[in-house]
Amino acid sequence: MKTKDKIILAALDLFNEKGERNISTNHIAAHLNISPGNLYYHFRNKSDIIYEIFKSYELLVDTYLHISSDQEIKIPDLIAYLDAVFNGLWAYRFFHRDLEHLLDSDPRLQEDYREFTFRCLKGIQSIVNAMKESKIYQPLSASQIRTKSLNVWLIVTNWMTYLKTIQADEGSHNEVYNRKCIQHGVYLVLDFVIPYLYEDKRALAIEYQEKYRFDEVESSI
Amino acid sequence: MKTKDKIILAALDLFNEKGERNISTNHIAAHLNISPGNLYYHFRNKSDIIYEIFKSYELLVDTYLHISSDQEIKIPDLIAYLDAVFNGLWAYRFFHRDLEHLLDSDPRLQEDYREFTFRCLKGIQSIVNAMKESKIYQPLSASQIRTKSLNVWLIVTNWMTYLKTIQADEGSHNEVYNRKCIQHGVYLVLDFVIPYLYEDKRALAIEYQEKYRFDEVESSI
Repeated sequence: MKTKDKIILAALDLFNEKGERNISTNHIAAHLNISPGNLYYHFRNKSDIIYEIFKSYELLVDTYLHISSDQEIKIPDLIAYLDAVFNGLWAYRFFHRDLEHLLDSDPRLQEDYREFTFRCLKGIQSIVNAMKESKIYQPLSASQIRTKSLNVWLIVTNWMTYLKTIQADEGSHNEVYNRKCIQHGVYLVLDFVIPYLYEDKRALAIEYQEKYRFDEVESSI
Repeated sequence: MKTKDKIILAALDLFNEKGERNISTNHIAAHLNISPGNLYYHFRNKSDIIYEIFKSYELLVDTYLHISSDQEIKIPDLIAYLDAVFNGLWAYRFFHRDLEHLLDSDPRLQEDYREFTFRCLKGIQSIVNAMKESKIYQPLSASQIRTKSLNVWLIVTNWMTYLKTIQADEGSHNEVYNRKCIQHGVYLVLDFVIPYLYEDKRALAIEYQEKYRFDEVESSI
């Protein structure tokens, strides 16, 4: 692996584990046993590393939100999409955990994230539309699809912020617990989606939904 | 009006209009034609002013989320609740527009906001429950009500962050436009709630919902 890629991966791991604000370029270099000078040869500063990480996150999300217009979608496909989305959130969790701060620190990232948001919303709409064409989703107008896609986006992107808000101490739980918390997001999105499925499809969707349920995260409410 | 209250009101206006980060205690004092010393007599620093503003916001929200267990709720009551919630968001819009930053800057606010979140979620649950008892909302289990209340909370609290993300330039629109954007949040929450109303109640809810629709905010999607 190239040093540049090693730096990105190490930074992502450290940011996810310790929080981006607690990790300096020196920490990253020390973690890789390379000199700070070697790191600066590849990246001017921490912002540039974060920006590269965002670019790879963006690529990942763009890949799974891109579907061809005649693609058939069945319930397991819908579940696979949602699973992938929340796996992405987990893999890049430092990013959504501190989104506002990161966007405030880098105008380039702010602009790119804005475009990314619009692309994601269009991607969600095309998936809902394909579900409608595949006769698992009830007929909705283009405007209704747009509104519902927006609500799904609001739930997905706020889930990490919510978890951060309610956890008095981020380090108080282990990784398995934290991962289950994030995956409960699939449960929440399905709760929103299921009423619009055709009645004969709902039982299967509910069966899948139960696998993502993590009662502990709601029990404090 | 007491000087202390004048300071809080002036700060709220200035924060909403110009953004909290662009306003110092000196700006607030100048705006009120009082000396910085006079302001410091009432508040040690800007954090203390923000904290007082949060306390009044909290009081407002607590008031309208508190309902007695036998209160009957009809569709107009539901609309009035949502209207009040989004009016509150508008009146204290600087707060949700920059929530993460504010919570990061003040551990006392962070802790209070966490408790506030839990109280709001319980408040939403009691409203959903009262709607069920009033026979406008379909029967749901306690766990389903909890999940749906959480989704409503995620939509409401993320709406302001979303608007901030998609607006390239915050000052590019006038106040009427910005207010309509926020009120579109009522439309979004109703989109989530309406499928669970009894069928004979839906038409009235949709009629109300249309009044909050602001297509411009979705047209860029």
